[in-house]
Amino acid sequence: MSDSPANRATEERRMHPRADASHWATSLTSIAPNAILVRGYHLDELMGRLSFADAVYLLLMGELPTSAIGRMLNAILVSVIDHGVTPPSTLAARNVAATGAPLKDSVAAGVLAFGPLHGGDIETCMRFLDQGLSLVRAGQSFDDAADALVIECLARSTIPPPGFGHRLHTQDPRAPRLFQLAMELELEGEHVRMLRALERALAVHEDQYGRLLPANVDGAIAAISADLGFSYELGNAIFLVSRLPGLIAHAHEERMRQQPMRQIDPKEHVYDGSSERRLPEGRK
Amino acid sequence: MSDSPANRATEERRMHPRADASHWATSLTSIAPNAILVRGYHLDELMGRLSFADAVYLLLMGELPTSAIGRMLNAILVSVIDHGVTPPSTLAARNVAATGAPLKDSVAAGVLAFGPLHGGDIETCMRFLDQGLSLVRAGQSFDDAADALVIECLARSTIPPPGFGHRLHTQDPRAPRLFQLAMELELEGEHVRMLRALERALAVHEDQYGRLLPANVDGAIAAISADLGFSYELGNAIFLVSRLPGLIAHAHEERMRQQPMRQIDPKEHVYDGSSERRLPEGRK
Amino acid sequence: MSDSPANRATEERRMHPRADASHWATSLTSIAPNAILVRGYHLDELMGRLSFADAVYLLLMGELPTSAIGRMLNAILVSVIDHGVTPPSTLAARNVAATGAPLKDSVAAGVLAFGPLHGGDIETCMRFLDQGLSLVRAGQSFDDAADALVIECLARSTIPPPGFGHRLHTQDPRAPRLFQLAMELELEGEHVRMLRALERALAVHEDQYGRLLPANVDGAIAAISADLGFSYELGNAIFLVSRLPGLIAHAHEERMRQQPMRQIDPKEHVYDGSSERRLPEGRK
Amino acid sequence: MSDSPANRATEERRMHPRADASHWATSLTSIAPNAILVRGYHLDELMGRLSFADAVYLLLMGELPTSAIGRMLNAILVSVIDHGVTPPSTLAARNVAATGAPLKDSVAAGVLAFGPLHGGDIETCMRFLDQGLSLVRAGQSFDDAADALVIECLARSTIPPPGFGHRLHTQDPRAPRLFQLAMELELEGEHVRMLRALERALAVHEDQYGRLLPANVDGAIAAISADLGFSYELGNAIFLVSRLPGLIAHAHEERMRQQPMRQIDPKEHVYDGSSERRLPEGRK
Repeated sequence: MSDSPANRATEERRMHPRADASHWATSLTSIAPNAILVRGYHLDELMGRLSFADAVYLLLMGELPTSAIGRMLNAILVSVIDHGVTPPSTLAARNVAATGAPLKDSVAAGVLAFGPLHGGDIETCMRFLDQGLSLVRAGQSFDDAADALVIECLARSTIPPPGFGHRLHTQDPRAPRLFQLAMELELEGEHVRMLRALERALAVHEDQYGRLLPANVDGAIAAISADLGFSYELGNAIFLVSRLPGLIAHAHEERMRQQPMRQIDPKEHVYDGSSERRLPEGRK
Repeated sequence: MSDSPANRATEERRMHPRADASHWATSLTSIAPNAILVRGYHLDELMGRLSFADAVYLLLMGELPTSAIGRMLNAILVSVIDHGVTPPSTLAARNVAATGAPLKDSVAAGVLAFGPLHGGDIETCMRFLDQGLSLVRAGQSFDDAADALVIECLARSTIPPPGFGHRLHTQDPRAPRLFQLAMELELEGEHVRMLRALERALAVHEDQYGRLLPANVDGAIAAISADLGFSYELGNAIFLVSRLPGLIAHAHEERMRQQPMRQIDPKEHVYDGSSERRLPEGRK
Repeated sequence: MSDSPANRATEERRMHPRADASHWATSLTSIAPNAILVRGYHLDELMGRLSFADAVYLLLMGELPTSAIGRMLNAILVSVIDHGVTPPSTLAARNVAATGAPLKDSVAAGVLAFGPLHGGDIETCMRFLDQGLSLVRAGQSFDDAADALVIECLARSTIPPPGFGHRLHTQDPRAPRLFQLAMELELEGEHVRMLRALERALAVHEDQYGRLLPANVDGAIAAISADLGFSYELGNAIFLVSRLPGLIAHAHEERMRQQPMRQIDPKEHVYDGSSERRLPEGRK
Repeated sequence: MSDSPANRATEERRMHPRADASHWATSLTSIAPNAILVRGYHLDELMGRLSFADAVYLLLMGELPTSAIGRMLNAILVSVIDHGVTPPSTLAARNVAATGAPLKDSVAAGVLAFGPLHGGDIETCMRFLDQGLSLVRAGQSFDDAADALVIECLARSTIPPPGFGHRLHTQDPRAPRLFQLAMELELEGEHVRMLRALERALAVHEDQYGRLLPANVDGAIAAISADLGFSYELGNAIFLVSRLPGLIAHAHEERMRQQPMRQIDPKEHVYDGSSERRLPEGRK
């Protein structure tokens, strides 16, 4: 019971000053006639000067991101913008779209599918990395801490730990790209280091898992966003922001191209979009 | 009945080729082991090279945006990222957050409040502008077409037409900033021109409305996104993408700072966040 | 625009007295310490004396139902309690359940799939019947009015009118049973009579539709609930109340019997429940 | 981790036979042309013979309820059909309704507010009662077990245990009425007995809690539905079924009587419905 959302909320409330009894306080956005201030900045001054990712950071974290953090967050948001027709969130959105419901209803149904097992791995992995870091703080090396965690996981089951392996990809292509960018932008911290140590520890136990388990995109987002200072809940929220356009695109495509009220079989789809292409030189 | 979503979908389906009877087709994202292609581009190649707004455009519209369009879309997404605690979407999200529900549940409830009267004005205004443009195509000047539309609106009621006026702001500060950027980026088109003509026509009828009705942010987004080629439904979807971080921020703040199960009175709030500040020189 | 929900709401608001400027009024349930009054009745007095269907009627319509209406409403609510795994609402609920989300999230996603084309036929059919009745009030016979409506429908398309025909059942078994009960309980009115006239008119045009189109369960509910005095919106709401246990049962079964995160193919299911059985003598 | 929904689902899956690899199974409802069988019974045979509450029990539990169970379930469903305008679920539904969204969108938003702290108490209380019963099975008396549980709760906090006390009612009138009916219908079992023992134990510790904490309606539903054999998740689902008409009634009233897009202050409402009245003699 001590770890319930209600109890955590109570603890965290103690950390913040509160308004007097008859009023309640918000620190996000102040609204006055002809003046909208987000975290103290005039919204119209931000427009054209911040990228949307920068503004997301400002709104959620309270301060402007550095240029490096803004670039990193743009890359993270791009990384999970869509994953085709088979995720349960996409299927929930498409099934609602098939009934002629408004687009927003499809989007809401898709958002509801971001459950513990779908998207939720980001938060679970953040907690897992912090378990390892508490061992490091107690004096262990990163590799020893990682090994201890993996052995503990294996004692429970051979299900991969959160953030590692992928049902389809043997090497999720999004994870190494995120790590490369974090390195180039000098944003790697102890959570990325712990994730890397865990990758090595999992490789040592490859036989028990039956396969290699490199970090997947959830693991990479978890480690990097934890290093950027995001809380568990907000780390998870990044996935919501990122995948929303995917839900919109699928719901819109369902309405435009398919028979209403059809029975949607996720396995029988084909791709008939643009063939493989590369970014033009100027965009690289 | 001829304008129902189902009928429109039927018409638009005729425009697209379909897969054979046993399969259905998608043109958004192809997934193969270790290869995720969004609209033909490798997702890991896009990461770090496109802003999130660029990627939203690519996913929804099928092609890379120009640099100007990418900057414009970033500004549009920033413009409606939050509007304080009083919109019904924010209150729906906060009421759900007060029950200890997961963050995504608050977000879904907030999304459901983006109804015809909240956010939906973007789509309604896009249709309104196209009504005016059909008069222009039939030979009228922009100003005559605008005047005809306004007179028609006034014959029904003195409720402002969609995209004009604001319950709080006499001059919504976000609209002129969006118009300025559209001009600087040379992205103005006939929809912006029609919106401007409507502003003038509404000023002529100021007495009947009882006040000036300059374009609001919904009107500016409607006109600019129509000029960028967004369909009605997707123009509206931009609002969903943009406001999502606002819903997240409010649901998170509710959980962190407020008593669970409190009764949320929207009128009794105070702002206790950062005081007014300006962007540092380097960000201008 | 004159038929938008907002405009209708405005008209209907004129019919009701309102509270003074600083307060707003509700006429449903009054709450005081140790006293909960629904429509004026003590809730604890209703418990054990009204069936749930009776209480639904009281809450929505403001007065106690007669015994006949209570029995009719129980039968209507039973009639659409579930329709197997293939409706989009059930698939939306199951896809959300597959992600480990709370039961209520599955239910909410399922509710969102009750769009214009799924459940919404009740409301559309109620409007359709009232179109016919306005012809009757203008002097036409029921059969002439029905014939005029069907000819008008056929001029647009050979899609069956709302409330008639079924994609799977040539004779939806629920509709005749509802009509039988309405007759036995002496609750038939002009809407049922108009529905019957439309069935006959559709039979005359069987060749053009390519098949017989008897009333389906949506049509039967539409006609009977209109005769009971339900408004369009509340007629539709009956479907929401009725199908909710179905959404719950499927979401629960998905969680109990299936692999998490599976891809749900609606066509590949089998039924392994109780074999066919009859009610025991005492229940008939 | 061992108590996660995913793990519980895995355990429970082991208890059920599964379909072969290419098919998946459902045991709820079988659909064939012109034949709908719910749990083996023809749906049209059930209509007019079962109350809706009976059918809910059949669908969720797999067998027909006895007459006593059917009456009890009707009373439980009536007991929480509405609780006025202030619950967060009602406010979420009303805020969505204020935007002109379809009724089902309001209902879905309301359902999402049935979080751990609102409605969720039924499930939490069911678990709490089973904790006590496991002490009884280990040899303690009901009163000793109850006392041990209360002392354990008090060691953590003076927040009332789930199912006891009410923020508004000193004696929730719905709870004693449910207990009376359970007794009259001879449906009381060990969970009700444990709840009663906990009431006595809480009275002994009245000083520490600062007030008497009789069982509330959530506690009564938890105990009785556990005695009827409902699982935790389905016990909670009863609340969803019951409150749905309340959500519908409030969303409908908001649309009919209030200004669109108003700011809803839960504290400033007045009741202007029927004055207090009693059931007519024939209904008692």
